[in-house]
Amino acid sequence: MLHGYNVIGAETSAAGTDVFQSFSTVEKNYLPERFHVATQQEVDHAIAKAVKAFAIFRNTTFVQRALFLETIAECILETGDSLLRRAHLETGLPLARLTGERDRTMNQLKLFAALLREGSWTDAVIDTALPERKPLPRSDLRRMLQPLGPVAVFAASNFPFAFSTAGGDTASALAAGCPVIVKAHSSHAGTNEFMARAIQKAAGQTGMPDGVFSSLNGGGATLGQTLAADPAIKAIGFTGSYRAGMSLFATATQKRETPIPVYAEMSSINPVVLLPGTLAARVQATAGSLAASITLGVGQFCTNPGLLFVIRDAATDSFLQALAAALQTAAPGIMLNTAICKSYYTDRTRLTGAAGVTLLTAGEDLSLEYKASPALLQVPAKAFREQPQLQDEVFGPCSLAVVCEDRAELEQTLDTLHGQLTGSLFGTATELSAYRSVAERLQQKVGRLIFNAVPTGVEVCHAMVHGGPFPATTDSRSTSVGTEAIRRFVRPVCYQDCPQELLPLYLQDTNEAGILRKVNGNYTREPIGSNQQ
Amino acid sequence: MLHGYNVIGAETSAAGTDVFQSFSTVEKNYLPERFHVATQQEVDHAIAKAVKAFAIFRNTTFVQRALFLETIAECILETGDSLLRRAHLETGLPLARLTGERDRTMNQLKLFAALLREGSWTDAVIDTALPERKPLPRSDLRRMLQPLGPVAVFAASNFPFAFSTAGGDTASALAAGCPVIVKAHSSHAGTNEFMARAIQKAAGQTGMPDGVFSSLNGGGATLGQTLAADPAIKAIGFTGSYRAGMSLFATATQKRETPIPVYAEMSSINPVVLLPGTLAARVQATAGSLAASITLGVGQFCTNPGLLFVIRDAATDSFLQALAAALQTAAPGIMLNTAICKSYYTDRTRLTGAAGVTLLTAGEDLSLEYKASPALLQVPAKAFREQPQLQDEVFGPCSLAVVCEDRAELEQTLDTLHGQLTGSLFGTATELSAYRSVAERLQQKVGRLIFNAVPTGVEVCHAMVHGGPFPATTDSRSTSVGTEAIRRFVRPVCYQDCPQELLPLYLQDTNEAGILRKVNGNYTREPIGSNQQ
Repeated sequence: MLHGYNVIGAETSAAGTDVFQSFSTVEKNYLPERFHVATQQEVDHAIAKAVKAFAIFRNTTFVQRALFLETIAECILETGDSLLRRAHLETGLPLARLTGERDRTMNQLKLFAALLREGSWTDAVIDTALPERKPLPRSDLRRMLQPLGPVAVFAASNFPFAFSTAGGDTASALAAGCPVIVKAHSSHAGTNEFMARAIQKAAGQTGMPDGVFSSLNGGGATLGQTLAADPAIKAIGFTGSYRAGMSLFATATQKRETPIPVYAEMSSINPVVLLPGTLAARVQATAGSLAASITLGVGQFCTNPGLLFVIRDAATDSFLQALAAALQTAAPGIMLNTAICKSYYTDRTRLTGAAGVTLLTAGEDLSLEYKASPALLQVPAKAFREQPQLQDEVFGPCSLAVVCEDRAELEQTLDTLHGQLTGSLFGTATELSAYRSVAERLQQKVGRLIFNAVPTGVEVCHAMVHGGPFPATTDSRSTSVGTEAIRRFVRPVCYQDCPQELLPLYLQDTNEAGILRKVNGNYTREPIGSNQQ
Repeated sequence: MLHGYNVIGAETSAAGTDVFQSFSTVEKNYLPERFHVATQQEVDHAIAKAVKAFAIFRNTTFVQRALFLETIAECILETGDSLLRRAHLETGLPLARLTGERDRTMNQLKLFAALLREGSWTDAVIDTALPERKPLPRSDLRRMLQPLGPVAVFAASNFPFAFSTAGGDTASALAAGCPVIVKAHSSHAGTNEFMARAIQKAAGQTGMPDGVFSSLNGGGATLGQTLAADPAIKAIGFTGSYRAGMSLFATATQKRETPIPVYAEMSSINPVVLLPGTLAARVQATAGSLAASITLGVGQFCTNPGLLFVIRDAATDSFLQALAAALQTAAPGIMLNTAICKSYYTDRTRLTGAAGVTLLTAGEDLSLEYKASPALLQVPAKAFREQPQLQDEVFGPCSLAVVCEDRAELEQTLDTLHGQLTGSLFGTATELSAYRSVAERLQQKVGRLIFNAVPTGVEVCHAMVHGGPFPATTDSRSTSVGTEAIRRFVRPVCYQDCPQELLPLYLQDTNEAGILRKVNGNYTREPIGSNQQ
């Protein structure tokens, strides 16, 4: 069923002799299928095809692109259980979770399709000519967002569907009108192939240009760097480690003639602040929901709560004990791959050994079974502030409780936090109102500020921000989840005194697509008429 | 009248002993006033004040910020003729031009004020809770744009008002809610002081926090690099040379713990494509308007047309002769400063000496008078393609005509162009329609695509894009002119299940400000009501 080839536009290609296999942490062995590493010629071929495809793809209508995305969702569903089974073997994630993630991935594609069909996302702005204006007449000026060009997408390990081959980066780049070249994640190369072939099929069925999508196998240091350095690649979407993300960022900003935007989602430990009133009133419930969040997906979520802030009072110890107890009851889960599992125990041990850090609970080392046992640690806020390395992410079901002596120390410590995807604040209604300055400080550090809820669970919707200040991402001005993610792959272009027939459809007088446009400062869906001022 | 001090929030400060004077290219001598270079302590003080001010300023309402901007405009007007006279002496620009530029600068401030009063710029998006949704309920999610933090603005030489102290970068950053620290341009330090004091006065009058604005004197390599490297600075606005811009970009992306966005507008030669039909029919008129554009502001506009593309035919030579003649009649103008004047002749000579380049006209070297004489050069397209250095900007009234043998060569040559602020296409209606692929190619290289008009003259309006692919700017996703410039200094923040009283005004149910919001996928100015789905 799997051919192990690279997908290069409408072709499949296996010119190279380097092959690799996926290791299954479930079966504890290598899966039989061999995947061919892309050769330099194959990489060049995919890029050349993407450049050629861009000239056509950028001029497709939003409705054409919507149909493409909807068809990808259909083709994914058609791959059926083979996809789910393969992903389970390659990632260790349970079938129920994978079924849910597949739905989410298809819904994401459909959400971008809906955004395209509605059309207003393109931010059309029109200032009509004022030929009689003094001292100088005004030209007719019309602006909309246009695609940047071919985008390199780096698949993530922890969401084999939603943040990988046909995930949010690919969906938003294609929606924007940018061809995509995916660097497959080598730990789920088979899952990648199913997805890549679904996209390839959908491109064929909807008449998209050859090269609108390719998927290549290879390592980050070779294939990844090649893509990031290539002059034809105009933006990068990445989810993964800090080290890999920063390496791409360095290449993209400094090692090429023309720097390009990098949207790397890298490292976040998602602080959760627990105010005293809530803790006192809801020790068990809070401990239970936090334990569930810390162990969700074996702690391998980008939004995993790795940091808990409490103000020392009578309830602190009983809460931490309750949380430790809840974590002890959680069954250790299989991790995504061997490297991640190894790092988990190494990083956990390093954290445990840091000055001032106390271990509250830690399950045994199950790395021979590729499983992660949960852990909870504790540190006084002062020691936390003095050791910035305590903010390094431990990827897995491990959380560090930071105990502050009072509100002032809580605020002082929050101010030393690095940038984060999320920050959560638990408090009673009265408390939240009284702790406004805490919420305000937390907001400065995060992309999403959450009240009385755990950070795991990222809704795919219009209002979502899955992003945040560095090092959570390399570009806090963007989100990688939700419809606004499309903005990452576009730039504004202004047309001055352009004849109607040369204008993009969405800027023409008629407004055939009926999109919302800002015309002479006012928002309207009306065409530009003779009565327009 | 001028005190020569640094403006640090509400204070004026001259702690240092290093002083400098402005050299006037008009009076051909140093002006008497001495300006104090900011000491490291003064720089630190300004930054500390900006950080403190940000905590207050970011929570001001849009209407409060609008009033601040409007008051700046008033205070600028109050400086009266002193400002205009000083700017004339410091830049050599005529009073009429400066009066116009002052109007433009005030209008720009008022335009951002109007944008703030209307309020919808903040891109409020609300997805209301769906507590009954299966399999999981949806939280209430609300998103808007929030300011990044203190911004360093680097004043430009060529627009002492509109792109300097109180120019577009400052206006848009303040509008966004970001405190601003301006690095004054040392060739118009007096002009800067008038402007900085106007802003300081307006901040006091409208009750803005101390430190919302500072202006410091110093060099790019010291003060500029210090600002770009400081952890508290969250973004950079810059207009100037490629070398200075890239030096800031390197610091901002690689030499600090947390990389920050750099909006550097650097180098553009603004290609103008002249199609055969237009040339044949309108030789004199086209030559006349191009000559006026090339010499406007002594060729010191960012949008100066430094590159002309023609397809060789019967009219080519007569057009180039007409253009050369028109340039010869233009009176040489005084340049902005001595360094720019020196570079002009050096760069022009270098270009003239390049392989294949022919001189059509060049006025004499008037550098002793600090004046630039216009020049027109010609090169075959093949030689142009073979020498990328022919795309290096010659800052001043000089243009290079690239002669293509046919349409295919025109298209091939356009594809080799670097990124540009603008591209212009002159053609008859029939021609434009027939040359769609030429327009399409040009669009890929530019931020603004212009039909049958010269590139100089940048309208300050909603639809303007004054930006473009590298090296025109370091960030093609932005514009430095027009209301969309505000987007450079913000990032989206999402609030999940946030109590109404802790939500920013613009995300609260009531929608008191009446802004346009995207609620559950639909655009509306209505409050969130009980009947909301």
